Formats: sequence, structure tokens, C-alpha cells
Amino acid sequence: MDKKALYSLSYGVFMLSTKAGDITNGCITNTCMQVANSPTRVAISVINANYTCELIKKSGIFALSMLDQACTFETIKHFGFQSGRDVNKMADLTLPEDINGIPYMGWHACAVLSCKIVSSQDLGSHTLFIAEVEDAKVLSENAPLTYADYQSRVKPKTEAKVQDKKIVGWRCKICKYVYEGSELPKDFTCPLCGHGAEDFEPIYED
Amino acid sequence: MDKKALYSLSYGVFMLSTKAGDITNGCITNTCMQVANSPTRVAISVINANYTCELIKKSGIFALSMLDQACTFETIKHFGFQSGRDVNKMADLTLPEDINGIPYMGWHACAVLSCKIVSSQDLGSHTLFIAEVEDAKVLSENAPLTYADYQSRVKPKTEAKVQDKKIVGWRCKICKYVYEGSELPKDFTCPLCGHGAEDFEPIYED
Repeated sequence: MDKKALYSLSYGVFMLSTKAGDITNGCITNTCMQVANSPTRVAISVINANYTCELIKKSGIFALSMLDQACTFETIKHFGFQSGRDVNKMADLTLPEDINGIPYMGWHACAVLSCKIVSSQDLGSHTLFIAEVEDAKVLSENAPLTYADYQSRVKPKTEAKVQDKKIVGWRCKICKYVYEGSELPKDFTCPLCGHGAEDFEPIYED
Repeated sequence: MDKKALYSLSYGVFMLSTKAGDITNGCITNTCMQVANSPTRVAISVINANYTCELIKKSGIFALSMLDQACTFETIKHFGFQSGRDVNKMADLTLPEDINGIPYMGWHACAVLSCKIVSSQDLGSHTLFIAEVEDAKVLSENAPLTYADYQSRVKPKTEAKVQDKKIVGWRCKICKYVYEGSELPKDFTCPLCGHGAEDFEPIYED
């Protein structure tokens, strides 16, 4: 089985947010598709280790902001490269709220969906949620950002190799898991949070 | 609720095929996403009225060919604009077969997944299948065709208006359902097969 075949599936890039009680949080995901009409339903898949996933299980609601071509890496880094367990990502932002009071992207997004979960299925690494779309808004005329765009254009290129220092391991930028060894296999997936090799950073010898 | 917001979700374009007993068939879909790893699982959503959907429910297996940038409208028309209930779509084609004996695209595709269903959920208009990926192959180095590419580049432009004839209705090109009226609402969805206004053609007065 050549897992690289899966890289040819096309995805968008989204800021997925929720509000559980007084707690709001959001993360970056790339999996959402419309799965039915009348009523309009979407499916999203979220990594179980994500704080947003835990909060969505409590709240039963979420907002999905579809990031657009104007989106910068800083926005993706803010929501995607730190955990809401460590940082209040919404603290210094003034975001509009959807019909459920969930903050969504007021910039860098072309559309937003407000959704209510109708069923969920734990798939081990991820939970698949099926949700009814209760509200939907067009936010800009920009084209949506695709995951392919993110990989080729938005994401910074890997930094030039630091000379004279040996790589002794790789750290997952998402959950801090450490892989010991100088070469991280290209198809490596973080056993804790499910992110791929592209989200690991090298650890150099002292 | 502005349903146009849903148009900003990003999708690929796929030829979804199956084999139930001696019967093989395939159709065009745009919904597939990876939903879990270890084991690798994908979700697809298929219109219940489609013959392929009926056959997948029987067989429990499918192949998903990811169409690529070389794909022509003729290929999409062959699999997407006629029903396997009326025509044997595989009859005059020599297609390779996957590990389950299911024919998949030997051209116009950059990758193929061979999948076994682990659960399904009837959502009214569509059924959502969750499936384990049993095999995966890279077929070409072409970039995958996105649904946005299909809409903007592959699909023929609507023919110039026929002058001097009044439009009296609209026919769904997929299932032949007829909408009576001169103007089809832009957000109209076929009540039989779930396809949108873009798949309807005008019916002119005699």
C-alpha cells in the first residue's frame, strides 16, 4: 500500500471553533465535506487529542470558518500550532460571533457555517462528527484556500539546515511528542496527535 | 442561511466504482476525505438514488479513482451523466482491476484507493460510508482535478441561449426529473437525485 496516494485527496483549510460553557477555542483542520441535503449536513473529522475536539464533544456545536486565499501563515500558526490547553487563543482577538455565540474568522475567511452535531463516531485517532448546518454566511469573494495552496504557498519553506550541529531527534510542533533518531521517515505520523512529518521540527545536539 | 457559503468547501473529483457479484458499475462523485489513520479510513458520501450506491451497499467494497488534471469532460460524462441501470458503462472499456477485482481508471487518474466499508449511515438524500483503505496506488504525477477546476475549466460552458424560443421547464441531466417553470432557482436541488441547478438543461416550447 502506497500511502502517498492519499495525498491526492483535495481539501480546504478551516478554522474550527466552538464554545462550551464559557470556554471558547479553535483549531485548524482540513476535513469538511457536505454529506447530505434537505436537511443540509456536513461531516468533519477532528483529532481526538485536540482540545477543540474535547470541547465540541461537550458543546455539540461548532463554527467552521473557510479560510481564503488572503490567509497568512500567522493566522494558521495562531490557531494551528499551539494548544488551547496552554493558551487562550481567543484572548486578544476581536472576532464576530455566530448564532450560537461561537467566535469565527472575521478576516482571512470566505465563508462560515454554524453547525449542530447530530451524530459522532470515534475512529481511534479522530472523531467523525455529522452535523446539521443551521446557518451559513458568505464572508468575502476570495477563493477558498486549499490544502495544496497551503502546502505550496502559505507554509514557510523548511529552514536552511543548521550547519555543524547534528540532528538527534524530531519534535512534533503540535503536541511535543519526541521521535528519537536523526532521520524522520517522510511518512511518519505522530502517534499522539496524528500530525504528519511536516509538523515535526529537528532537535539538534547540545 | 446563505447556501452559497457551502460552495466554498473544496473537493476533488472521483470515479467511484464497485463490483457486486458479476455486476460492475461506476459513477462520478466529489466527496471523499481521510477521516482517521491507524488504520487508515476514509469517508465518502453517495447519493442514494445512484445505482453505484445500491451496488456498494451489496458489495461492501469500492475503488476510488482520483481524477487528475488530464481528465476530459468525455470521461466525466461517461461515468457521471448516465445511469448504470440503463447502460453498462464498463462494457467497451478495458480497465485495470484492483485487489478486489473492481475496475478503476487506468488513465485520467493520479491515484486509486481500494476500500472496504466498516460502517454506513443513511442521511436521507445520501449514504455516508466509512471505509478502511486496504490498498492504495499512485497512478500518475499529474495534480488531482479539483471540483473548482471541473467547474471552471473542464465542464463545457452553457450553450448560448436559443433565441426566439421560450423556456417552459428544466430537465435534470442526471435522472431526467422535470421542473416546470421558465426560471430554475439557482439553489434548486433535484428532489430525486440531489444534483444542483448546474446539472439541469432547459426545455424549450415546441
